[in-house]
Amino acid sequence: MAYIKQYLSALDKLNFNGMFSGDFFLTWEKSYDEILATFTVADALRWLRENNVSTRIFDSGLGISNFRDNSTRTRFSFSSACNMLGLALQDLDEGKSQIAHGETVRETANMISFMADVIGIRDDMYIGKGNAYMREVAKAVREGFIEGNLEQCPTLVNLQCDIDHPTQSMSDMNHIIQYFGGIDKLKGKKIAMTWAYSPSYGKPLSVPQGVIGLMSRFGMDVHLAHPEGYEMMPEVEAVATKNAALSGGKFTKSNSMKDAFKDADIVYPKSWAPFAAMEKRTNLYGNNDFDGIKALEKELLTQNAKHKDWECTEDMMKLTKNAQALYLHCLPADISGVSCKEGEVAASVFDRYRVPLYKEASHKPYIIAAMIMLAKVKCPQETLSNLVAKDIKRCFS
Amino acid sequence: MAYIKQYLSALDKLNFNGMFSGDFFLTWEKSYDEILATFTVADALRWLRENNVSTRIFDSGLGISNFRDNSTRTRFSFSSACNMLGLALQDLDEGKSQIAHGETVRETANMISFMADVIGIRDDMYIGKGNAYMREVAKAVREGFIEGNLEQCPTLVNLQCDIDHPTQSMSDMNHIIQYFGGIDKLKGKKIAMTWAYSPSYGKPLSVPQGVIGLMSRFGMDVHLAHPEGYEMMPEVEAVATKNAALSGGKFTKSNSMKDAFKDADIVYPKSWAPFAAMEKRTNLYGNNDFDGIKALEKELLTQNAKHKDWECTEDMMKLTKNAQALYLHCLPADISGVSCKEGEVAASVFDRYRVPLYKEASHKPYIIAAMIMLAKVKCPQETLSNLVAKDIKRCFS
Amino acid sequence: MAYIKQYLSALDKLNFNGMFSGDFFLTWEKSYDEILATFTVADALRWLRENNVSTRIFDSGLGISNFRDNSTRTRFSFSSACNMLGLALQDLDEGKSQIAHGETVRETANMISFMADVIGIRDDMYIGKGNAYMREVAKAVREGFIEGNLEQCPTLVNLQCDIDHPTQSMSDMNHIIQYFGGIDKLKGKKIAMTWAYSPSYGKPLSVPQGVIGLMSRFGMDVHLAHPEGYEMMPEVEAVATKNAALSGGKFTKSNSMKDAFKDADIVYPKSWAPFAAMEKRTNLYGNNDFDGIKALEKELLTQNAKHKDWECTEDMMKLTKNAQALYLHCLPADISGVSCKEGEVAASVFDRYRVPLYKEASHKPYIIAAMIMLAKVKCPQETLSNLVAKDIKRCFS
Repeated sequence: MAYIKQYLSALDKLNFNGMFSGDFFLTWEKSYDEILATFTVADALRWLRENNVSTRIFDSGLGISNFRDNSTRTRFSFSSACNMLGLALQDLDEGKSQIAHGETVRETANMISFMADVIGIRDDMYIGKGNAYMREVAKAVREGFIEGNLEQCPTLVNLQCDIDHPTQSMSDMNHIIQYFGGIDKLKGKKIAMTWAYSPSYGKPLSVPQGVIGLMSRFGMDVHLAHPEGYEMMPEVEAVATKNAALSGGKFTKSNSMKDAFKDADIVYPKSWAPFAAMEKRTNLYGNNDFDGIKALEKELLTQNAKHKDWECTEDMMKLTKNAQALYLHCLPADISGVSCKEGEVAASVFDRYRVPLYKEASHKPYIIAAMIMLAKVKCPQETLSNLVAKDIKRCFS
Repeated sequence: MAYIKQYLSALDKLNFNGMFSGDFFLTWEKSYDEILATFTVADALRWLRENNVSTRIFDSGLGISNFRDNSTRTRFSFSSACNMLGLALQDLDEGKSQIAHGETVRETANMISFMADVIGIRDDMYIGKGNAYMREVAKAVREGFIEGNLEQCPTLVNLQCDIDHPTQSMSDMNHIIQYFGGIDKLKGKKIAMTWAYSPSYGKPLSVPQGVIGLMSRFGMDVHLAHPEGYEMMPEVEAVATKNAALSGGKFTKSNSMKDAFKDADIVYPKSWAPFAAMEKRTNLYGNNDFDGIKALEKELLTQNAKHKDWECTEDMMKLTKNAQALYLHCLPADISGVSCKEGEVAASVFDRYRVPLYKEASHKPYIIAAMIMLAKVKCPQETLSNLVAKDIKRCFS
Repeated sequence: MAYIKQYLSALDKLNFNGMFSGDFFLTWEKSYDEILATFTVADALRWLRENNVSTRIFDSGLGISNFRDNSTRTRFSFSSACNMLGLALQDLDEGKSQIAHGETVRETANMISFMADVIGIRDDMYIGKGNAYMREVAKAVREGFIEGNLEQCPTLVNLQCDIDHPTQSMSDMNHIIQYFGGIDKLKGKKIAMTWAYSPSYGKPLSVPQGVIGLMSRFGMDVHLAHPEGYEMMPEVEAVATKNAALSGGKFTKSNSMKDAFKDADIVYPKSWAPFAAMEKRTNLYGNNDFDGIKALEKELLTQNAKHKDWECTEDMMKLTKNAQALYLHCLPADISGVSCKEGEVAASVFDRYRVPLYKEASHKPYIIAAMIMLAKVKCPQETLSNLVAKDIKRCFS
């Protein structure tokens, strides 16, 4: 009980009214207090679950998932989040549906939402498309609710788009908050968000963009490094610059992995495709230019291969603060000698951090559940208190 | 509470004993009272959900779906109906199962039903097959229950067959009942169920058949119109004729969309394939005659193209009662200039009716839930009263 | 209540402490008491469900399924078992996930298990692989739990591997216990586990292996018969030999279906592929030698065809005890003249035993639920008593 009171009093000090009846598209659209409220509710839900107290706030209702790209971690995290709140998962498999040529997004969004409390979407492949699609769906169901077609307005949770991957970056962030013992401990800490070599091409930009867009808000020294030509979306870099200024932190860019790793407290080396190439690919797909896509793939792989030295090796790790920076990754990582010949990270480095990496991933179900709860419940303090008071066992034996 | 009492007293006046432990194959196998009871229970369940009262009558149990054709609306409606009653959905994906050559329908039906309270099937592609398959499944599980293999007998809900689409026509009907302010207001109202042009071929007959088979029971003036050669199943037309006579309504046929629309209170313009062509296609599939199927498709598309003037345009709408008939569609519609170049309905007409169209669709989850409840619960009045008395919140915050 | 007390006092006499927090890989790793406890809990859960008492011990939580081979019966049984205990099913579809080349089993196992209470796996195609994979998953999540990444340690249930099919053999066994009126009635009863002809090749060995590995523990006279060349895994035959010696039963082998059927109380005629051929196939798949696989298939079918006389005909049945042995099968059977021209069993034999066959299959959901419950609950007597005391209705009308 002592613990839960901490969460409740933490929430009492925050202003997160804007989240009720809202959606979660991009972390930088949320206020600092709203971000903290999300972490706090996530932690409170985790505490309840760890203490075998039911976290169900729904007796029935659906959580809709729509994965336009493969997913394991996020799929199971969304499924877990829905389940722990009492929602049943219903996947929209566009291949098995009638969503043919021409049916409007508005119509589909309404037709699947008569009993939906949340819609989670992954659409990360095409620049300029994924986030826009999510907003179109969210707008459609909001109108459907106002027009009286839907009994309730489902909240939209971005499960990775072309711009941001908020459920990932929030999980990463909550992990480092807990690892370093509190958000106040992060001030001045250096994090290296760096590109790393991978034998695959076209990995989404949303993870590194999400990281610099979020971690720049806590007074940290965020160093973004990548080889020339691996630029991100300029809008997101602008967000990071502004965030750093406001939070009393720094946002630095370089083309040197070593500079980034030097004295870093945290490193996040990860492959991604250049923004310009992703934009080009989006256009090629738009034109069904499959020869063009193949040529682009080949070009990108050749370009990647020039930067095999961007690997998180033991030597690189020695450059970090006391040679023991915290290593982060959204997983799965391309591990040299394990999942590929040469990759993002040396096997010995990865293995040393395996346990904290899994812990990092373990936050995602709770982050998603918190996002849903904050959109669905006006006063989460009251709701959490009620859950504690009722004390229904999650597993009653 | 006032509202729920209305529903309960409405039910008290109806005789629907026949629905308990039964199935729902075709609307015309149900008595007039049974149809009304379904609407009433659907409305009561909706009222409960709108008032945040749990509608769960199951603590656990499975709802099995078996979609032998693509589906979005009905899939999500069935999923929603199961969820609101407390059942978990388990889809039978025949591709992932061992249902190979030779395993009998009886065996599969029993093997999936040990904990099933409802089986929902869509099988609408082949004339003479879909409804027959559903009856075979229903018979098998009934025998399995009697033989003691199944703890409970799942009720079968027809989610669209070759003959009828009862969850659709019942939703359409409940929509017009509420739109016009009560079932007694429908007497003498004219509804035009008409063919409309679509650039796709082979749309099932079950929607228009379901509509004339159901709407002819309420004293309405049902006008069926289609180009020559687009005949429906004669048995269903016979049902409509008989229904109209019994209910003091009319059932008229013509080959003129204009005659149908003239002074109509309600219009339902929708593409379908000729019965004879569907029968031919069924045989071609039976013989694996893929060249024959291709030739038939081409022939049907050419035939369709001769009737592009069968479009629900603004001019056509002007012919209707006060130029403001209610426009119905089961969705998705082929909207000219939106989902196709030339289609069933002009974009401006569709847009004007978009909100009522979504409302029309919103009835389906409740209609399905009512069908399940009436088959599973002996006295729905008591069950509904209990739900109100318990007053468990659907979303407790 | 009288009934449930019988189950509780039966459990009081058994020592099954080893099952708590454990997994279920192979029946012969479980003590005799543990096997009996599983039957008893299964029967108690069935009694509760038959009496409309909720069997939910979870308020929320996930059951993960991973079917690496097609399944209908076991899929729905696992789904039913999860549902009756209160768990939501989440299928791991490896095709839709990111489980690409290289991601370790350990990582995937942890990533899907943050809220998993049970993982059910079918992996029966390759000799030396399936069971090993299950153990790797179970080890990974156990470590993940100890390392603090998982809130709870999911129990692993073997839904068929290369060695055993415990949920099947346990269902078969519980069926014969109830058919013959108690486990003490089985002493000295003769069961014929025999090969039978099928026009398909490569059926897993796990069913017959599971049967001889389990049924040899109850003092029965287990007769294994197959044509020369259809040998099983020698380790499993050794298990059966040892079991028979310990239980005061017999384990006999022959190459004669007639010898096996002679005076048998129970017959289980079923096709399988020779162990050596399955091993060869595993290696061919490992080498992506698809020509080799085709050649092997052809060879196996030719070899099978030499033994078409291994069919459970009426004449064969006449050899059994009073010509009325109980016929068992895991289903679906290859029924001569129904599912194939010539198969494992004559249609008239199959039809006569259809009802008991379905009953046999009906045990599986309860067996699986019992396996989960015994791994999750320290004192099932207390849990079952609580369920009876609470008396929440499964279907409350």
